[in-house]
Amino acid sequence: MATDQISQIGDAANRMRISAIDMTCASKSGHPTSSASAAEIVATLFFGEMRYSVEHPRHVGADRFILSKGHACPILYAAWEEAGLLTREQTLTLRKIDSDIEGHPTPRLNFIDVATGSLGQGLGYAAGMAYVGKYVDKASYRVYTLLGDGESSEGAVWEAAAFSAHYKLDNLVAIVDVNRLGQSEAAPLGHNIEMFADRFRAFGFHSIVVDGHDVAALLKAFAEAKTIKNKPTAILCKTFKGKGIKDVEDQDNWHGKPVAAEAVKEIQARIKGDKPKWNIPSVVTDVKEHDLKLGSIKMSSPPSYKLGDKIATRQAYGTALTKLADTCKQILAFDADTKNSTFSIEVLKKHPEQFVECFIAEQNMVSAAIGAGCRDRTIPFCSTFAAFFTRAADQIRMGAISFANVKLCGSHAGISIGEDGPSQMALEDLALFRTVPNSVVFYPSDGTSAERAVELAANIRGIVFIRTGRPALPVLYEPNEHFEVGKAKVLKNTLDGKGKGVVLIGSGVTLYEALKAHDELNSAGIKSAVIDLFTIKPIDTNTILETARAIGENPQIITIEDHYQAGGIGEAVASAVSSSNDKIRVHSIFVKDVPRSGPPDALLDMFGISAKHIVAKAKSTV
Amino acid sequence: MATDQISQIGDAANRMRISAIDMTCASKSGHPTSSASAAEIVATLFFGEMRYSVEHPRHVGADRFILSKGHACPILYAAWEEAGLLTREQTLTLRKIDSDIEGHPTPRLNFIDVATGSLGQGLGYAAGMAYVGKYVDKASYRVYTLLGDGESSEGAVWEAAAFSAHYKLDNLVAIVDVNRLGQSEAAPLGHNIEMFADRFRAFGFHSIVVDGHDVAALLKAFAEAKTIKNKPTAILCKTFKGKGIKDVEDQDNWHGKPVAAEAVKEIQARIKGDKPKWNIPSVVTDVKEHDLKLGSIKMSSPPSYKLGDKIATRQAYGTALTKLADTCKQILAFDADTKNSTFSIEVLKKHPEQFVECFIAEQNMVSAAIGAGCRDRTIPFCSTFAAFFTRAADQIRMGAISFANVKLCGSHAGISIGEDGPSQMALEDLALFRTVPNSVVFYPSDGTSAERAVELAANIRGIVFIRTGRPALPVLYEPNEHFEVGKAKVLKNTLDGKGKGVVLIGSGVTLYEALKAHDELNSAGIKSAVIDLFTIKPIDTNTILETARAIGENPQIITIEDHYQAGGIGEAVASAVSSSNDKIRVHSIFVKDVPRSGPPDALLDMFGISAKHIVAKAKSTV
Repeated sequence: MATDQISQIGDAANRMRISAIDMTCASKSGHPTSSASAAEIVATLFFGEMRYSVEHPRHVGADRFILSKGHACPILYAAWEEAGLLTREQTLTLRKIDSDIEGHPTPRLNFIDVATGSLGQGLGYAAGMAYVGKYVDKASYRVYTLLGDGESSEGAVWEAAAFSAHYKLDNLVAIVDVNRLGQSEAAPLGHNIEMFADRFRAFGFHSIVVDGHDVAALLKAFAEAKTIKNKPTAILCKTFKGKGIKDVEDQDNWHGKPVAAEAVKEIQARIKGDKPKWNIPSVVTDVKEHDLKLGSIKMSSPPSYKLGDKIATRQAYGTALTKLADTCKQILAFDADTKNSTFSIEVLKKHPEQFVECFIAEQNMVSAAIGAGCRDRTIPFCSTFAAFFTRAADQIRMGAISFANVKLCGSHAGISIGEDGPSQMALEDLALFRTVPNSVVFYPSDGTSAERAVELAANIRGIVFIRTGRPALPVLYEPNEHFEVGKAKVLKNTLDGKGKGVVLIGSGVTLYEALKAHDELNSAGIKSAVIDLFTIKPIDTNTILETARAIGENPQIITIEDHYQAGGIGEAVASAVSSSNDKIRVHSIFVKDVPRSGPPDALLDMFGISAKHIVAKAKSTV
Repeated sequence: MATDQISQIGDAANRMRISAIDMTCASKSGHPTSSASAAEIVATLFFGEMRYSVEHPRHVGADRFILSKGHACPILYAAWEEAGLLTREQTLTLRKIDSDIEGHPTPRLNFIDVATGSLGQGLGYAAGMAYVGKYVDKASYRVYTLLGDGESSEGAVWEAAAFSAHYKLDNLVAIVDVNRLGQSEAAPLGHNIEMFADRFRAFGFHSIVVDGHDVAALLKAFAEAKTIKNKPTAILCKTFKGKGIKDVEDQDNWHGKPVAAEAVKEIQARIKGDKPKWNIPSVVTDVKEHDLKLGSIKMSSPPSYKLGDKIATRQAYGTALTKLADTCKQILAFDADTKNSTFSIEVLKKHPEQFVECFIAEQNMVSAAIGAGCRDRTIPFCSTFAAFFTRAADQIRMGAISFANVKLCGSHAGISIGEDGPSQMALEDLALFRTVPNSVVFYPSDGTSAERAVELAANIRGIVFIRTGRPALPVLYEPNEHFEVGKAKVLKNTLDGKGKGVVLIGSGVTLYEALKAHDELNSAGIKSAVIDLFTIKPIDTNTILETARAIGENPQIITIEDHYQAGGIGEAVASAVSSSNDKIRVHSIFVKDVPRSGPPDALLDMFGISAKHIVAKAKSTV
C-alpha cells in the first residue's frame, strides 16, 4: 500500500480517537482509553483490509468483524462514522436511552451481528462464523475479531482457539489489543507479548507480533494472514491504553472514564491530511442470501411411534433433527462430545456435513452456534447433557442480548438419570432457560411430542430450549397429534365440579408418575385431571385455569417436577395463577436436596417426586 | 526408589484395575476404561509419592489429591481400598442408593474434598488449595490433580493454569492422563502429547512428558516436579484407555461401559508379588487444624451510617468485608479484575495478604475459592458484577454438590446500573442462586443491612449469595438494627383490616420505589405496607402472610424487582403463599424484555419497575 494510504489510515485512526473522546465526554461515561489503544487496529481493518458495504453492513458477502472487547465500542462507532454510515450527531447520542448507540454493542444496530460486553466471547462467535464460511457457505468472506489482553484470561477464548485450529479456519484472524492494563490493575501478562504469541501458537494458530499503532505493520500482518493455509492467524498487537491522550496514555486508573475534552487538540494536530473519500473493497460474491423459510420447515416424515412403545425423548431428538436435516440444509447440529448420549449422532451418520463436533467445551459450542446462526446462514441446534448447559449460562445470556437464533437441547435431565449421580443431573436448567428473555422452553414427555418440539423449535426465531430425558418411557400421543407452542394437553380428567379434586401437572418422568397417581386417586374416590404442559415457557395459563375451575370449590393444583424448586414448574404455575381471581392453591413437589447415585425409581421415591408422594399430597390437601 | 518398590506399585496398579473392573461389573455401569488408563498414575501417587493419613484422609497436613476426571472414580476408590481405608465389600457398593461410593466423587466420602464429574474443574480447585498452602498456611503440603485429555478442551482448565503460573504455585502438580479417546470419538489432540506440553509451557508451567504406564518414569517426574521453583508442573502422561483389558485397550466405543468380568484373569496374571504392607509417608506438620468459629465471627466495628446518608450496597460490602478481615484471618477476598467496582479493593488496601486477584476468569475464581475453603483453611468471599457469576454457573452448581463453604457477592445488579447496558446487568442472578440447593440469598437494600448480610454470610456454612447494587441510596436502618437470616422487615404499614389495601415487596432499588408508591397510594386513600425481604432465600413466608392478612378481605401483594420474572422475587413470593389457605393474590412487576443503555431512573420507568408503575398496578387491582 502506498505511503499516502498509510498516512490516510493513520489520520482516520486519529479522527476516530477524537470521535471516541467526544462521544464519551458527551455521555459522561464509557471507554475512551480502551478505544484509543485500538484506533490504528480498527482503522486499518476498516480502511485497509476488510471488504464490506456501507449501505448494507450485514451483507452476506461482507467480511465479518466482531469487537470482542465490547467496552471499546466507541472506536467501532467512530469507524462507521468515518465510513459514512453514522453521522457525528448520531455517535454523540452514545448511551442515551433513545439511542441504539449503546454502552456495549448490540444487534439493535445494523452493523452488529452479536452482542459483546461480557468478555471472552468474541472469538467463539467468530469461530462459528468462520466455520460456516469455510464449510457451509464455502465462500471467501473472512472473519476478524478484536480481543483485549485482559479478556484473554477467560477460558472461553482458549476453547474457541482450540476449535478454530482443529477446524483449520484459515479464514479467521484474531487480533489481540495488548494494551497492558486491565480494569483494576495491569493484566497478568503485561506487555509480555511473546507469551501471548506462544499461547496462540500452542493452540494451533499462526502468530504474528506487531506494534499495534503502526499501520504499515498491521497491513503487512493482515496480508501475511491471507497467505496462511489450514491455520487461523493471531495478530498480537503491542499497544498503549489511552494512546495519544496526554497524561492518560499507559497510566493506571483510567479504565472506563471520560478524559478531558482538551485532549483532542493535540490529537487533531497529528492529522496530516483531509479526510479522503474512502474506496471500500466490495463484498465477495460467492455467497448468496437465502430465506430460512421459518414457519414452513418440516421433518421428512412425521413421528411414527405406536402408543405404549418405549422411547427416550433424547432419542426422539436425534431422530427428529435428522429428519429436519433431510429437508433443510441450513440445519446444523453441534454437540460437545456427548453425541452418542444426546442422539445428535444420528445427524452425523446421515448428514455428516450438517454436524459439528465441539468436543468438551460447552461455552464455545454455544458461542460458535450463535455465530453460525448470524445473517441467517444456518439454524444451529446444540446438544449436551442439560446439566452442562450451565457451563454456558453466560453465553446463553449474551445470546439473548444478541437476539440470537439458536436451539439448545439438554438431555439427561433430572434425578431420573440414576447412577451417574448429581454432577450429571440437570435440576436447574428450566430456571436457567426460563430466565432468558423471549425464550421458548419445551419439555416434551414422549417420543411423539419430542419430535414435534424439535420441529417447532426450528421454525421459531430466537432461543429455544428442549429438555429431554434419559429413560425410555411409553409413547402417549398418536403420530398425528397436533402440538403448538404454549399449548398444554389434558391427558386425564375426571373432575366433576363438586369441589373435591385436584389438577396434577407433571412433565417428563413426573408426568408418568402423575398418571399413576391419577389412577390411584381415582380408586380412592378423589377426582383429578392430569396436564402435560409440553411448553414450560410460555406457559398455558388458560388451560391450567380452565382445568382447575372444573374442580369447583377450593381448586387445587399439585405440580411435580424432576427439578429444584426455584424457577421450575411449580413456581411457573404458582406465578401464572397467582394474580387470577380464582384463588387456586398450588402445591409444589420438587427435588429438595442434592441427590445421589442410585436406580431412577428408587431416586424418585427417595427425593419425593414419585406417584406415592403425589397421592399422599393429594390426600392431605383435598 | 528400589526396583522391588516399583514392582510393588505396578502390582498395586493392577489390583486397582481389577477392583475397578469388579465394581463396575457389580454396578453394571461406570467407567472401567477411564480408570484403567490412570491405574499406574494413581498407584504411583498413592504408594510412591503422596504423604497422607489413612486414618484421617482429610488431615490438614496431608497432600491433596483431586480427581478432576471424576468419572474415573473407580480407580480412586480402588486406591483407598489398596491403602486399607475401604474394604472390597464397600467398593462393590459402587453406585448403589445406600452407598456413598457414588458414580462420581462427592465429599459424602471422607477422602473427597470437592465433587468432580463436570469436567475441567479440578485444576481450579487444586489451584485454590495450592494458593492457600503457599500463601496462607505457608505449609509444605503439596497438591496433585489428575485431568483427562478430553476435559482439557474446557476453558476453565486454562484459566486455572494461568492463575497457577501467575502465583508461582510450585506446590502444585497437574497430571494429564492423555488416553487419546473421548466419550464419542477421539479427543482433538489424540496422542499429540507434545502439543499438551507446549500448551502448559505457554501458560507458564514446567512440562514433563512421560509414559503414563511406566511407574519408574512417573516417580522420576514427581521427583523432578519437587525441584522446580516458582512454577507449577504439568506431567503429560501418554496412556491407553482400557489399558490392560483385552480387546478393549485403545478401542473406541468403550467409554462408560463395564467390560467382561473375565478380563481380570489376564490382569491378575501380571501381578508379580503379594500385596505389601504399605508404608505411607506421614502428613506434614507445619500446618495446624483451626476452628473457624462460625457463629461468632464479628466485624471490627458495627455499621456507622446515619439514616438518610447515601451509600451503595456494593460499597458497604467492601467496608464490611474489610472489618471482618480485621478480626478473622481466615477471611479471603477473591475478585475478577472488578475490585474497584465491587469495593473488595478495600480488603486489598488494608489486608493485602487476605486478597486474591483472579483477573478476568470468573470460573476459576469460583473453583479456586471453593478449593481455598476446603478443610476449613479459609472463608472465601468472591466478588464480581452479578451478571458475570453466570459465567461460573456450573462451578457454583458443583460447589453445591461439594457442600462448599463459599460466599459470592454480585454487584451492579439489574437495570439500575444504567448506561453500561444489558451485557453488564444481572437480571437472572436471583434465579441462579436460588436454584443452588441449601443456598442462602441476601438482597440488602441499604448500607446497614448490607454490612450485616456480609457478617451473617461469614458465619453460615455453605453457599451464600449477596446481591449488591451500583447506585448510592439512602440508609434505612439504624446501626444497631438487628438482622437475621430469613427475617424480613416491615418498613411501612397503614393497613387497617378493611380490605382495601396492598402489600408491596421490593428489594434494592425497587424497595425505594415501593416506599415512594406507598406515599402516593396513601395520598390516594389506598392503604399499603412495604416489606424489605432482606433474605430472598429462605423467604420469610410468615411475615409476608401476616402482613397480607392485615389487609382483611381480598388480600393482595405486589412484588417489584430489578430482575427478570423466572426464579425471581415474584415467583418466590407467589410460590411461598400459593399453598396457604389465605388465598392471597400476587401481582408481579419485573423487567420484561432485554433492557438497553440509559440513565437508571429513565430505565426503571421504561422497563416498568418504577413507583409510577407500582401505583398504577395497585390502583387497578385494589
